[in-house]
Amino acid sequence: MVDRETRGGRAGRRGRRQAGDSAPSIVRSERYRQLHNRLNLQTPLSQDRVEAIHDTALRVLEVLGIKVLLPEAREAFARAGCPADGENMVRLDRALVARAMETAPSVFPVKAGAAHRELVLGGDSTVFLGVGGAPNYSDFETPKRAGSFVDATNLVRLSQSFDVIHMLSPNVEPQDTPPETRHLLMSEMMLTESDKPIFVYARGQPQVLDCFEMLRIARGVDEERFRQAAYCYTVINTNSPRQLDIPMCQGIMDFAAHGQISVITPFTLSGAMAPVSIPGALVLAHAEALAGITLAQITRKGAPVVYGSFTSNVDMKSGSPAFGTPEFIKASFAAGQLARHIGLPWRGSAPNASNAVDAQAAYETQFSMWGSLLGGCDMMLHAAGWLEGGLTANLEKFVLDVEMLQVFAELLQPLDASDPELAFEAIAEVQPGGHFFAAQHTMERYTTAFYTPLVSDWRNFGQWTEDGAKTATERAYGIARQKLAEFQSPSVDPAVKDALAAYVARRTEEGGAVPVS
Amino acid sequence: MVDRETRGGRAGRRGRRQAGDSAPSIVRSERYRQLHNRLNLQTPLSQDRVEAIHDTALRVLEVLGIKVLLPEAREAFARAGCPADGENMVRLDRALVARAMETAPSVFPVKAGAAHRELVLGGDSTVFLGVGGAPNYSDFETPKRAGSFVDATNLVRLSQSFDVIHMLSPNVEPQDTPPETRHLLMSEMMLTESDKPIFVYARGQPQVLDCFEMLRIARGVDEERFRQAAYCYTVINTNSPRQLDIPMCQGIMDFAAHGQISVITPFTLSGAMAPVSIPGALVLAHAEALAGITLAQITRKGAPVVYGSFTSNVDMKSGSPAFGTPEFIKASFAAGQLARHIGLPWRGSAPNASNAVDAQAAYETQFSMWGSLLGGCDMMLHAAGWLEGGLTANLEKFVLDVEMLQVFAELLQPLDASDPELAFEAIAEVQPGGHFFAAQHTMERYTTAFYTPLVSDWRNFGQWTEDGAKTATERAYGIARQKLAEFQSPSVDPAVKDALAAYVARRTEEGGAVPVS
Repeated sequence: MVDRETRGGRAGRRGRRQAGDSAPSIVRSERYRQLHNRLNLQTPLSQDRVEAIHDTALRVLEVLGIKVLLPEAREAFARAGCPADGENMVRLDRALVARAMETAPSVFPVKAGAAHRELVLGGDSTVFLGVGGAPNYSDFETPKRAGSFVDATNLVRLSQSFDVIHMLSPNVEPQDTPPETRHLLMSEMMLTESDKPIFVYARGQPQVLDCFEMLRIARGVDEERFRQAAYCYTVINTNSPRQLDIPMCQGIMDFAAHGQISVITPFTLSGAMAPVSIPGALVLAHAEALAGITLAQITRKGAPVVYGSFTSNVDMKSGSPAFGTPEFIKASFAAGQLARHIGLPWRGSAPNASNAVDAQAAYETQFSMWGSLLGGCDMMLHAAGWLEGGLTANLEKFVLDVEMLQVFAELLQPLDASDPELAFEAIAEVQPGGHFFAAQHTMERYTTAFYTPLVSDWRNFGQWTEDGAKTATERAYGIARQKLAEFQSPSVDPAVKDALAAYVARRTEEGGAVPVS
Repeated sequence: MVDRETRGGRAGRRGRRQAGDSAPSIVRSERYRQLHNRLNLQTPLSQDRVEAIHDTALRVLEVLGIKVLLPEAREAFARAGCPADGENMVRLDRALVARAMETAPSVFPVKAGAAHRELVLGGDSTVFLGVGGAPNYSDFETPKRAGSFVDATNLVRLSQSFDVIHMLSPNVEPQDTPPETRHLLMSEMMLTESDKPIFVYARGQPQVLDCFEMLRIARGVDEERFRQAAYCYTVINTNSPRQLDIPMCQGIMDFAAHGQISVITPFTLSGAMAPVSIPGALVLAHAEALAGITLAQITRKGAPVVYGSFTSNVDMKSGSPAFGTPEFIKASFAAGQLARHIGLPWRGSAPNASNAVDAQAAYETQFSMWGSLLGGCDMMLHAAGWLEGGLTANLEKFVLDVEMLQVFAELLQPLDASDPELAFEAIAEVQPGGHFFAAQHTMERYTTAFYTPLVSDWRNFGQWTEDGAKTATERAYGIARQKLAEFQSPSVDPAVKDALAAYVARRTEEGGAVPVS
């Protein structure tokens, strides 16, 4: 009893226990591994406006075209009946786009390093991922500076520590590693510090093929089996407006050829690289995503792709990107409608534009999260640790965001309103002026009735003050440090570790692979 | 042009203006005066579970009863066919409750001191209100202390300053005023510093009648006209479980008799004064609300009432109340369903349990706001400035919350996706690699395209650092001070001011009215 009393505090001290009571633990973490979003989604666009945006995007592709910089990609489009003009503009036939939407799978599994980490993308499944691609790092004790390999490792370890983070993301750029071996070091680290599905940068074919080979070593599969299921993903940002650059085209083609996931995400900032109206920005984003998805499908029918959107607005005074704005939220809702219209999994995001881990960081991030979730996102990227418009990955922000994601994960659990939960007998048992602390109904449920917060401090003002009056940001930093101190790598076969290390050593010896940009 | 360039910054400097361009201002504040919530609401309860909760609540009232402490209220129930037993327990016939739900209006107007401040409660109308009832006050420079009349005045002035705050709330208790004249001083202040509908405490009949008389003076109406329309509201918190105390009963009866609004809100903390299961807590809350609403309707058929809910959970370790939790959100969604089931306006809330104006304060508050809005609330109380579980009203928190409310208000505006907004011509105009800053489509829309934030700082890290690296909390405090420095009271007829002052002087001379508790 001592242990439970310690953990249970006031509840645990109630003492009146039932025979057969198996002292349920308050840990409900496994609830967060497979999330299903059955919320009523937001639909700011009427069906005819969804169709109008889709149709206008097709018109953009047919009449105006998209500039394709990689010769092999232009050849692939030409073989599919849409040759480029003299300025590398490819005009896409709408029938070709329609066929691509038909062959792209609407739901597919994602393999991981452990069975309980396997996922589904699409349908009502929802997965959360941390910040991706930040050049800089900061934490409560470390002012903003260039990201390092240690920072990247710490963020991967945090990602591994919380069940509510379902896949790894390229949290922070380890700028203290050589560009030509960075992909090797990062892949080795991700594959040994985590058993979750990983991210691979599309920075040229040699790097991509290295990462695929390391994945095959780690997951113990041959080329053929690898090609039959998704083990990793990349994010393809088109160069809005209307351009697919060389590494992006190459990435789409390589990932498709190997059956891996391209998350094709135009980064359309309304008022800057996209029209100032949100529907106009969505037309452009939709057109670019359709072009990328079509390239994947003409490379290999059935290749797993995710319809990504990252439409927000700029501050018209400064030109700065803004996130978590009403425009971002509406764009997310509408992008989700477009994704469902074409029947593909949809990637949303949870960005903010704050420079500090403060109230702005929290409220903008949460607005973005709701935009994505109520838009029906299948995959929410940048959902933990993103700061400063994505320029910085922050350690305590990661933990604060995990708290919000866990609240969402709890919210996605159905509300059990069966007759016993209506508690008529408990209400009869407790007289006016009484309380329910000791009611039978309470005793049977109290250990698992409520979400236990990670960061939120609900103690009274006096207790909180006596304990140092720490803000949520400071507490989150403490939790991050504690999680990292306690971290245990997942069990990875030593032979696999050796094989990965040998691969990295050999490829490093060979000079690695220079990133293509 | 200079003025617009200054205001417009980068956008304004573009220079290329159209003939007839009337330099639209970026002020969109009037958009926030009449809000309509057309979001797709969340429905965690199936229709049969809504009915089961309603039916179980009726069974609680019929079989178990509710304790009614005011003799006149017991007499009213007895006249309606439901006499109390020897322990003052009133068992309510379900037919009586059903009749009360029929006579209570589902939509009604609320009068204000100016035509553009008049409101509707019910339907898809949504109104936001600040914190109510906090005993303490704090701000960025003032540590937590007992609330004062100056604090209360400042918070009323802030409430008046933002169109997104639609009605006044009893922000903070002015503990430096005598209890027997506090209601006079507060009413005089609210009626001269603001033209929005006001709050009146139900602290005994003499105080309530004083406030009604002052309202009639301020609004220039006689008793009969006053009785025909709602000019103010009170909040009735039942004493859960199953008890209506003396001032609450008296308040319900007095407000109903005078045609003023009772917001009948059981404060049911799941696991403490209510069952540990959220549906059980809702059964209890629903029963208590139905009892209060029935008392209003048997006092006067058609009296305006609002179905209030304030169901959250306690921390089972400490017994502390928690807010913005997944349980709070689900309870809000479900309470909205119950309100719609009985066809009454629903009051939600936006509380948090943070001790500091930090990330926790922001994320818990926003979770609560979404719970209320996606639950379909007609009235969101405690939506600005609430801190520390309601024990403290905080100045900068008020402004931070106004920022969030303005984002919601923008979000409630429809998304115009008509053909011109799809921007095909703009997309055709801008070549790959180009930008939309100077596109005709942008020029026509940029001044009003996006929400302009109040607190959010979107400048880059360097500019933000040079400007003192202020957190959102610090910036919000600066905005609050500025708003207060610039504040101008609404125009109130000097004769009305004199009459109010004379009333306060006379009643003070007479000793005021001792609050009943």
